Order: sequence, then structure tokens, then C-alpha cells
Amino acid sequence: MKRIAFIATGCFFVAFNILSAFPAERSEYWRQRVSLFESLPVNSTDIIFIGNSITDGGELTELFNDLRVKNRGINSDDIDGVTDRIDCILAGRPAKIFLLIGINDVSHNVSLSSLLSKYETLINIICEQSPESKLYVQSVMPINNDFNRYKNLRGKEDLINSFNSGLQELASQKGIVYIDLWPALAVADSDKLDPRYTNDGLHLTGEGYLAWANHIKPYLFE
Amino acid sequence: MKRIAFIATGCFFVAFNILSAFPAERSEYWRQRVSLFESLPVNSTDIIFIGNSITDGGELTELFNDLRVKNRGINSDDIDGVTDRIDCILAGRPAKIFLLIGINDVSHNVSLSSLLSKYETLINIICEQSPESKLYVQSVMPINNDFNRYKNLRGKEDLINSFNSGLQELASQKGIVYIDLWPALAVADSDKLDPRYTNDGLHLTGEGYLAWANHIKPYLFE
Repeated sequence: MKRIAFIATGCFFVAFNILSAFPAERSEYWRQRVSLFESLPVNSTDIIFIGNSITDGGELTELFNDLRVKNRGINSDDIDGVTDRIDCILAGRPAKIFLLIGINDVSHNVSLSSLLSKYETLINIICEQSPESKLYVQSVMPINNDFNRYKNLRGKEDLINSFNSGLQELASQKGIVYIDLWPALAVADSDKLDPRYTNDGLHLTGEGYLAWANHIKPYLFE
Repeated sequence: MKRIAFIATGCFFVAFNILSAFPAERSEYWRQRVSLFESLPVNSTDIIFIGNSITDGGELTELFNDLRVKNRGINSDDIDGVTDRIDCILAGRPAKIFLLIGINDVSHNVSLSSLLSKYETLINIICEQSPESKLYVQSVMPINNDFNRYKNLRGKEDLINSFNSGLQELASQKGIVYIDLWPALAVADSDKLDPRYTNDGLHLTGEGYLAWANHIKPYLFE
């Protein structure tokens, strides 16, 4: 009886940890998107954008007016999520990969060292499995807590800055292009996402997408 | 004092009704997407897909491999939401418009007569403002309550069938193409979305998107 109770408790603990890693709604949507991506071939001329809701919510192929541009964003995704699903993208050996990921990790209180460790693991996987792909690491975008919308992002400005500094260093060490998005999106001389470019302090409006696209367009076609 | 209380109660009632019509998260995301659409021009060769999460979650330009195909889906949208935002799409006089909308209205317990009335209003607006656009009304897709995921869709199979019959009749009256998606997506001789095509009984997996795309492709390029 005691053994059964022990085993049952252990199973519950394991199941709880697995399930709680993926909130139910995200998990279903994440699997839908991954399933879609697995059904869509990637080839060696493709320019792949991988990220979270900011990527997912943009009509990137249309924004750049180029069929080689493909959207692999998933709302709510984090660094581990991208790492878990990147194989099917790398299998196609795309020409370019633009990463924009990390803000959800920041909101989940992942430590700076862990953020950078996870990101480095992701970069290493990309470089090892698809050395043909030119990788671009985009800075985490600025946020704007004046909108007071995301409690888990309050007071995270310093962490975001440190994370971006770490990403820039990581990219430099590995000979990867780092794209700082702040000149395009932040209010000059501030830590804030320009309020013209957002309606909630995190996600982009149309103007924000245009500003982002204009800033990174030179990298797509270099 | 009584008058103040009366006015305050009235204001609260009005505000509550307005706010409750748009859950906060949907409203922000809806506005972000609308803002993006307003920043992206539509032209007379475009093939526009308008709808809710099923449209929003697909990479349609990529699925059909054609830059004329543009995604104007918004997660959680309903018939009124599409009606409210369709002007900027119609202003471009697109060549074709594919509508896929209504399941969220069904889940919100909108009556059959109201569903059809709202849809007719939407069709009339499209036909009046952009007679150049060839309009395609897609049936509401089948659902599968074996997944037991969406409480508000339980027992709605008959309503969905009646709604689709009504849409088919409406389309016929107005000389509009009605596309029945059930031959492509439903289990044969049943009311159920094929479980190969979904992971939650409502939204599509990659296989589901491919089945949908294959079914409607002839209409895009006719």
C-alpha cells in the first residue's frame, strides 16, 4: 500500500511538472503551429523569422514582399520552445535565420545567466546543424511599462539591457551578426518602446512593424 | 443623491456592456492586427483571407506560395469584428475575398437568425463597397467535441449545420460562391472534424491546413 502511494505520488509529481511547464492553451496552440511548420518545407533560399508573439503577429512575407521570407513565430514561445522545435527548420538549411526571442523568459523570471546559457545552447545547435544558414540575433525589443499592462515585466528594464549586452557579446564571440533594434524602436535616450509603436507596451502596432521591418530590411537582402 | 446614483449606475452599465463585448486581451490583439492591416496596402490583384484564429494561425501566403494571398485573420474574431474592420480591405478592391467566420459567434450563443442577419449585413457591405471583388463564403468548419475542449461548443453541431445551410441559401440568393469545407475536413458521413486535422476539436494541425488548402486552391486561381 505504501509503495503504491509512493509511486502514485511520484507519477503525479512528474506529470505536474511536465504539464505545468506548458500552460494548456499555449501548449495546444504551440503544437498546432509546430505541426503546421512541419508540414511546410524550408529550403536553402529561405529567410526564416523565428520567435514569439511579436514574430507570430506580423505578416512578414507580406511586409517584406518576398516569398522567401517565412514566419516561424509562436505566440508565448520562449528560448526553450524555439530550441525544441528548431530541427525541422534547420533540416531545410535556410539561407538566413532571424531570431527574436527571450522576452517571455524575462517575464517568467529566468535569471540572466540562465537566459544567456539557454540562448547560447540554441545558437550552438543552429551553427552545428545548419552551418550554411547565416544567423542574425536580434536584441530583445524595448518594452514600455507606462502602459502598465504586463505585471511580470515591471522593473525588468535593467535585466533586458543586461540580456542584450550579453547577447551582443555572445554574437561577437561566435562571429554572428547582432542587430540592435533599439535605434528603431526605443524613444531616444530611453529604455522605453516608443508609444507610437505599441498599444500595450510590448507588442507592435502597424507603425511598429513598419519601423522594425525598415530597420532589418538591409540584412535580409545583403 | 438619488440622481447621482442613477447616473453612476447607468454609466457603469454602459461601460460594462461595451467592455464585456471585447475581452481585454482580444481587444488589444485585435487592435494590433487591425493596425497592422491598416499599414499594409491591399491592391486589385490580391486574394484576401478574412477570418478568426483558424485563418490567423495559418501561413496562407506560404501555403499557396503566392504573394497575392494575404492573411487578414484575427484570433477570436467574430462576424461583427470582421464587419468593423473590413473597410480598409475593401478600399483596395481586392480581386478575391475568402470569408471564414462565425464559429466564435456560435460559441457565444448568438441565435441562428442573428448569425444569418449579421452575415448578410457583412456580405452586403462587401458587395456594395467593392463589387469588383469576387466573394467566396466558406462554410463554418466542422468541430469535434470528442476532444471535450470547448465547453461553449458542446451540443452546437445542429446549430452549425443550420448556419451553414443558411449561408448556402444566402450565397445562392446573392449569386455568391459558397464553398462547403466538410467534404475536405469532416469524417465521412458525420458531423465531426476529422481528428487527424485537429488537436483540440476546433483548430487545425498542419495536416488540416493542407487538406483545407488543397480543397480551396481551385477557387483561388480560377
